Amino acid sequence: MRFKSNRLELVETKTPEVSEREALIKVILAGICATDLEITQGYIAFEGTLGHEFVGVVEECADMPELVGRRVVGEINAGCGWCDWCRRGLARHCPQRTVLGISGLDGAFADYLVLPAWNLHPVPDEVDDRRAVFAEPLAAAMEILEQVHIPPGAPVLLVGDGRLAQLIVRVLARAGCLVEAVGRSERKIRRMRGYAHKGYLNAPPPDVKYPFVVEASGSPRGWRSAVNAVEPRGTVILKSTYAGRTEFNPAPLVVDEITVVGSRCGRFAPALKALAGGLEVSDLIDAEFPLTQWKEAMNRAREPETLKVLLEIAEPTG
Amino acid sequence: MRFKSNRLELVETKTPEVSEREALIKVILAGICATDLEITQGYIAFEGTLGHEFVGVVEECADMPELVGRRVVGEINAGCGWCDWCRRGLARHCPQRTVLGISGLDGAFADYLVLPAWNLHPVPDEVDDRRAVFAEPLAAAMEILEQVHIPPGAPVLLVGDGRLAQLIVRVLARAGCLVEAVGRSERKIRRMRGYAHKGYLNAPPPDVKYPFVVEASGSPRGWRSAVNAVEPRGTVILKSTYAGRTEFNPAPLVVDEITVVGSRCGRFAPALKALAGGLEVSDLIDAEFPLTQWKEAMNRAREPETLKVLLEIAEPTG
Repeated sequence: MRFKSNRLELVETKTPEVSEREALIKVILAGICATDLEITQGYIAFEGTLGHEFVGVVEECADMPELVGRRVVGEINAGCGWCDWCRRGLARHCPQRTVLGISGLDGAFADYLVLPAWNLHPVPDEVDDRRAVFAEPLAAAMEILEQVHIPPGAPVLLVGDGRLAQLIVRVLARAGCLVEAVGRSERKIRRMRGYAHKGYLNAPPPDVKYPFVVEASGSPRGWRSAVNAVEPRGTVILKSTYAGRTEFNPAPLVVDEITVVGSRCGRFAPALKALAGGLEVSDLIDAEFPLTQWKEAMNRAREPETLKVLLEIAEPTG
Repeated sequence: MRFKSNRLELVETKTPEVSEREALIKVILAGICATDLEITQGYIAFEGTLGHEFVGVVEECADMPELVGRRVVGEINAGCGWCDWCRRGLARHCPQRTVLGISGLDGAFADYLVLPAWNLHPVPDEVDDRRAVFAEPLAAAMEILEQVHIPPGAPVLLVGDGRLAQLIVRVLARAGCLVEAVGRSERKIRRMRGYAHKGYLNAPPPDVKYPFVVEASGSPRGWRSAVNAVEPRGTVILKSTYAGRTEFNPAPLVVDEITVVGSRCGRFAPALKALAGGLEVSDLIDAEFPLTQWKEAMNRAREPETLKVLLEIAEPTG
């Protein structure tokens, strides 16, 4: 599914060629993420095949032949492999990076994709395809705890109830945090039951302040709610990226000595470990479509009540 | 010097009355700060006597009579004294607080001011009045190092060359940081010599990124320069408060996983210790006026090339 000249289309292409350090992966399942929808709204200038959440099978891999035939997921930032960032496992900040389906690298809404071999992670047998396809957004949710120490028992306000927020509430609840969530959909707030300690529709209680607030609403409104709800010297973790700007008055951050932490992609290894350890995610799948029904799939993903929509690209294996 | 109905005026008032827990302080010297100028521009709704940087002598103090006759400086946030914030020495975040010359409490541009006795710090003999009057802004500069660990040798970009920035460069240089400063005044950048490792006029080098950036420019432009100059996973420390809003695109903070730390007032004890230890500040005084020449003093402080302007209110003692 290619995005070009501001429109989406499904086109026939040749199977891509791979260099020695790259792997050719046959995509089994791919997930549609808010970022895919934002790209079609002009969030960043990208032309090419969309999609960065996937599980697939390695068909070619000269450098690591032991991966051929293995079911894998893959880190989406393709770094140079040699700079300080890449050597620290932070290819997401490599200045030379391309990003699968987001920047300079054709993505996963296609029969085949190409990634550097070192980006791949074999999927443990106990994690089936419909859970493995969540490795990327789950890693992004878990990145919060790599960046910020949120102690067990800490009250956390989660602003947002969408795809990423649903994973964040599970990750934080698993770490022992007392998560209160605020969202705009009663149904999606209900789906946090068992993970969120409390749920609020539209606005959190006006007089309660939280030491930690996670902004994952995907909307400029969320930024203001988050800053209003954090206590002095508290921390706001920003997960949303979206097209456009918002108004910003820095004075409250200074006066209340707030810390704001931008947070993006995460490491796959702990995400796969959490999935193998039983973290449930596949109940978040609302619909699955074959790639030929890409229009229906994207439309469904755009509906406000929808959580995860998958594209079935090849025959599932697990 | 009272600010009321959007204008400044000098008025005769009675000597204020003090409760048991308060101290009456005769002001010797007071400093004009950018916040005083911002208040006259509508930064916050305050009516009353301006001024929060001072050194004075205690005339009455029922609770701590040993302070009477002592030369003191005072923390400007007057908290309730009993909440969790106050007990942690963070009255600046007490929800009941008033703030000297800024919020609900008449300030230092007057013959007398009143503060809770526990806000006062006796000034060591070796710190003369013209250095003691810098205790408040110096504490604000040192607050950066209370909040953020900046290791010795770390490169820091300081955005701003004004009153607070001049103190920040001294504090950071003293902590061993390699500070590069960018400002809009050649003269003020030159005044950082001996403290700043490098100085730039108007813009920092375009391709250099810094792990730490301190934004103390007092202007919305500074926010954008700071975010542009920080490296991925780096930290921006925000010191500026000003009237008005700026446009804000949160995506770069998220994509580059930037941390932004709002930073305001600091503890006086380490600032007094630094002054007693020889940290030089009084060379930043550009002019001194008696309180009767308050108009000239405020006008001089507003000139872009001016650093510190003092008001001489009583006979200096040290």
